[in-house]
Amino acid sequence: MPSSAVTIARDLIRCPSVTPAEGGALSFLQELLAGAGFSVSRVTFKDADTPDVDNLFATIGSGKPHFVFAGHTDVVPAGAAGDWRHDPFEGTISNGFLFGRGAVDMKGGIAAFAAAALEFTGETGADFGGTISLLITGDEEGPAVNGTVKLLQWAKEQGHEFDACIVGEPTNPDKLGDAIKIGRRGSLSGVISVTGIQGHVAYPHLADNPIPGLVRLLAALDALQLDRGNERFQPSNLEVVNIDVGNAAFNVIPARAEARFNIRFNDAWTLDSLKAKIRETLQGVDLGSLLLEIGFRRDASESFLTKDETLIAALGKAVEAETGRVPELSTGGGTSDARFIKNYCPVVEFGLVGQTMHKVDECAAVDDLDRLAAIYKRFLTSYFS
Amino acid sequence: MPSSAVTIARDLIRCPSVTPAEGGALSFLQELLAGAGFSVSRVTFKDADTPDVDNLFATIGSGKPHFVFAGHTDVVPAGAAGDWRHDPFEGTISNGFLFGRGAVDMKGGIAAFAAAALEFTGETGADFGGTISLLITGDEEGPAVNGTVKLLQWAKEQGHEFDACIVGEPTNPDKLGDAIKIGRRGSLSGVISVTGIQGHVAYPHLADNPIPGLVRLLAALDALQLDRGNERFQPSNLEVVNIDVGNAAFNVIPARAEARFNIRFNDAWTLDSLKAKIRETLQGVDLGSLLLEIGFRRDASESFLTKDETLIAALGKAVEAETGRVPELSTGGGTSDARFIKNYCPVVEFGLVGQTMHKVDECAAVDDLDRLAAIYKRFLTSYFS
Ligand SMILES: [Zn+2]
Ligand SMILES: [Zn+2]
Repeated sequence: MPSSAVTIARDLIRCPSVTPAEGGALSFLQELLAGAGFSVSRVTFKDADTPDVDNLFATIGSGKPHFVFAGHTDVVPAGAAGDWRHDPFEGTISNGFLFGRGAVDMKGGIAAFAAAALEFTGETGADFGGTISLLITGDEEGPAVNGTVKLLQWAKEQGHEFDACIVGEPTNPDKLGDAIKIGRRGSLSGVISVTGIQGHVAYPHLADNPIPGLVRLLAALDALQLDRGNERFQPSNLEVVNIDVGNAAFNVIPARAEARFNIRFNDAWTLDSLKAKIRETLQGVDLGSLLLEIGFRRDASESFLTKDETLIAALGKAVEAETGRVPELSTGGGTSDARFIKNYCPVVEFGLVGQTMHKVDECAAVDDLDRLAAIYKRFLTSYFS
Repeated sequence: MPSSAVTIARDLIRCPSVTPAEGGALSFLQELLAGAGFSVSRVTFKDADTPDVDNLFATIGSGKPHFVFAGHTDVVPAGAAGDWRHDPFEGTISNGFLFGRGAVDMKGGIAAFAAAALEFTGETGADFGGTISLLITGDEEGPAVNGTVKLLQWAKEQGHEFDACIVGEPTNPDKLGDAIKIGRRGSLSGVISVTGIQGHVAYPHLADNPIPGLVRLLAALDALQLDRGNERFQPSNLEVVNIDVGNAAFNVIPARAEARFNIRFNDAWTLDSLKAKIRETLQGVDLGSLLLEIGFRRDASESFLTKDETLIAALGKAVEAETGRVPELSTGGGTSDARFIKNYCPVVEFGLVGQTMHKVDECAAVDDLDRLAAIYKRFLTSYFS
């Protein structure tokens, strides 16, 4: 009889895979999947500036359609282990909950999919009319350089063409079945710097204070309503996250002031159109002789909205059948590795309840792990029928 | 024959009295003045938090009117001595200029007054119809805690009641005779802090960003016209000198944002009325649920304007007679020890040309030193006539 989601999740939690350490988690999965007939590859990516990262790609079946499940075994640090009710790397089950770092983000999601895939292929054999793959990175919580991005490229070079993807991140705010993510907002970060002329506060005519100019620029950004959102997306939102002048002296007018912002934006914008709008807004502010510089960070991402109705419907019906809930089709929240996968195939996201992720006493309900496995298996059955 | 201003200035420059070190400068003055019949006291003030400071009080004559000259022998550091054309503590005369740290700020001013006082009392004897004192601190360029403030209090306790004071700071922007300072603006520094709720940029509804609130507060301060100035004073001016948030993460909405400001204000305001105006302005800004805190620093000073027409006229006429220039009666520039002296007697300020003060190659024209001594002597003659 195949391992249950709960057992697999517990065994994964016992591997201390704090990013970027592999911690035995990928080796455990490798053995589990290979034992069930999956062809498993381990791929390490290296980079001058970031740690080496171990990744795993497992595949079974052949031909189209090719479905891929994406996830990560690395976890954020446990913090002060003494603050936990149960050892964060022990996988204790107590009062119906499985405790441990990664229980919901996202060893639990991986365990549920592995259990589902093992049960599905155990019943059908390898000849189920398509391909199932697992794309598992060890670098989602870290710099995200040597993980999903490179593993997707590697898989493509190996000849894999994906038709649909589910990312197993925790997507439910409150109860299993709350929400499927069918897209994500984009993210754009930028730096505004204003340079004037340093001087003494007693002689302001000899100086040119950059701060009032920066204040006018930030007021213009604050007044900007990018859009009102739409049926699928919240309104785009800009937050100024930092202002830095670095002047300790009350009697000195500083030479330079800098602000940093981040925008989470919907599909009314592309990175290019948004950058143009920000530039136009800032350049429309009268700064006198002050020098304005605008820089955008390279770690930006476009928004996306998955329009594969078959994929969305198959997952949605599986969720409804197992939970009795009609999941919201959401695009809220932060970014995820789905932003990379969407360049290869339609992608949706569904996993456990996210409330305890990254926190002390992270835990998943044992019932939820079983039901999530049932949802994934029902989805596979429907998808390959 | 009495020492000339140039000789005294050179000898003072040779004493390396970088604040708070006495460097032999006060001892040199003590010997010079005592030798001319002055009664000289050395007073050291101590304090838990700041260095001990040596000060000097010298007096000659008796009864009213009691005129006091105020100055400081401490100097700011020379910086990289190798950048100087001449050793900053050598007092080299070259091309008609006396070079050295303190040449204009303000060993040159002290030297000119000492030369003038020695010449005047040398001619009249001690019975010139009043009292002349010198109040010389070693702590003007430092924390200004153990200097003028305590020396004034000490002199009062010794029974000295001053009727008029000249501070010998460099007051002339360009040429000797440009300007007498007859008052100074006040100075008020403050800190504005806004506290909201930290959060993730992807979930702004769970956070409360303090930065837009701070921007609105600073815009309100920028829009504030405190006054238009008057016959004697420039308009009051507020400069925001720093903004600090201290958030390094582009995906985090910070909990707190802080700004610092300084106001140089004229006699349309007192510290109390100005604080009330700032509070009223800031509290009039809608901040939603953000928490606003306003703090004012204790090192504030009231503005003042000296109205002793006799003192101003006597000094003004002496300047005009020696330089052919009618000095502007100015209240511009930063604060000086005059802000403490004005609580004891009418005070005006006149000294050398300030252009090179605190800079590499600080220097005073030899002619200016002689002419400043002549101005001071002409003033004493007029004042005690
Ligand atoms: Zn995750
Ligand atoms: Zn000075």
